Amino acid sequence: MHEIVIEEKILARNDEIAARNRKALSDKGVYAINIVSAPGAGKTSLIERMAAELKALGIGFAVVEGDLEGDFDSKRIERLGIPALQITTGRACHLDAHQVSHALPWVFAQPGIELLVIENVGNMVCPAEYDLGEDMKVMVMSAAEGDDKPLKYPAIFSASEALIINKSDLVPHTDFDIKKARDNALKVNPYLKIFETSCRTGAGVAEWARFLAGAVRHAK
Amino acid sequence: MHEIVIEEKILARNDEIAARNRKALSDKGVYAINIVSAPGAGKTSLIERMAAELKALGIGFAVVEGDLEGDFDSKRIERLGIPALQITTGRACHLDAHQVSHALPWVFAQPGIELLVIENVGNMVCPAEYDLGEDMKVMVMSAAEGDDKPLKYPAIFSASEALIINKSDLVPHTDFDIKKARDNALKVNPYLKIFETSCRTGAGVAEWARFLAGAVRHAK
Repeated sequence: MHEIVIEEKILARNDEIAARNRKALSDKGVYAINIVSAPGAGKTSLIERMAAELKALGIGFAVVEGDLEGDFDSKRIERLGIPALQITTGRACHLDAHQVSHALPWVFAQPGIELLVIENVGNMVCPAEYDLGEDMKVMVMSAAEGDDKPLKYPAIFSASEALIINKSDLVPHTDFDIKKARDNALKVNPYLKIFETSCRTGAGVAEWARFLAGAVRHAK
Repeated sequence: MHEIVIEEKILARNDEIAARNRKALSDKGVYAINIVSAPGAGKTSLIERMAAELKALGIGFAVVEGDLEGDFDSKRIERLGIPALQITTGRACHLDAHQVSHALPWVFAQPGIELLVIENVGNMVCPAEYDLGEDMKVMVMSAAEGDDKPLKYPAIFSASEALIINKSDLVPHTDFDIKKARDNALKVNPYLKIFETSCRTGAGVAEWARFLAGAVRHAK
């Protein structure tokens, strides 16, 4: 079982670097969230929608974008006047703590920074195991994905502190049962704080942003 | 760069076993497809919808289901009277050729078997690199995921022979531009054969099933 031993060593090393990231962020008074989801669940759209709310609440924030290739997402964020840094992971299906450690000097150089938003690669498996040094892992699940997902990908729901059920505007056009999705998620992780949003209409985003701003202020 | 060397060795070993799977399948006259997608794009629903069409076309087939945990998907398929075998991958974010090699004796024991349908773990990154010994890799993309996905996850679109754009019934309720999605996919892989389906209404499934049946018969 060489593969497993190597993987455990990689994960242990990642945990060490994540702990250093967490301490560096805390020392500088920066709260960090790690947004994870399947591809196309709406992570970037959520960050776009959150931007105005967080600005209105007076929270200074920056975004680190993880993608296999390209800088489509960081460009979308920069267009809103928000500082964004792109990390391209190549063939790797998740961000790791080492990559994030290299982004921290850039993060700390942003004026008035209180919150770091990290958007992970779209993947519901490996990001569950790679701590980046964040304070809150935020799982985004699209209503179009089906209400059984918490039972099929339990590790990532279990590792998250908050769950955002996005694309709520699509619910009437699908067989998605939002109560069943909530029940399944809470079966896997009874501590999950659950929000419902539509990044197309903006519904629910203000409530999520207020909760996040509270967490940022509470950590000080 | 120890990590990369180890990964290359693992991939080279996987390719060897995949080649053996491919030969064993071909020797027994069984055509194989490997269905990949993001979580919740509708792979299992597609297999359910294909079942009646393939039966009507006289194609004998069996299904191997890959999931992190549980046997929800194989139970859904068995309910239709189709033989289904569940492989649980635990923490692994993709099926590999070795796991599939262990399923082959069960596959070959199915009476009248001509087609093996493998449903991979929901993940748009690593399944692109792990050949299972299939004849056709089939990428399923949900219209709810956004038309930019081929540009953001190019490897998996590039490794596939067919692309199924599913949940076409949701298109009127989203900003998804089906022409842009097709153009982006063909930019990454000009050889892709593209189908549009809705597993909710059944639209487009017959056309895809006829194409697949043709490929199965042509391979004989």
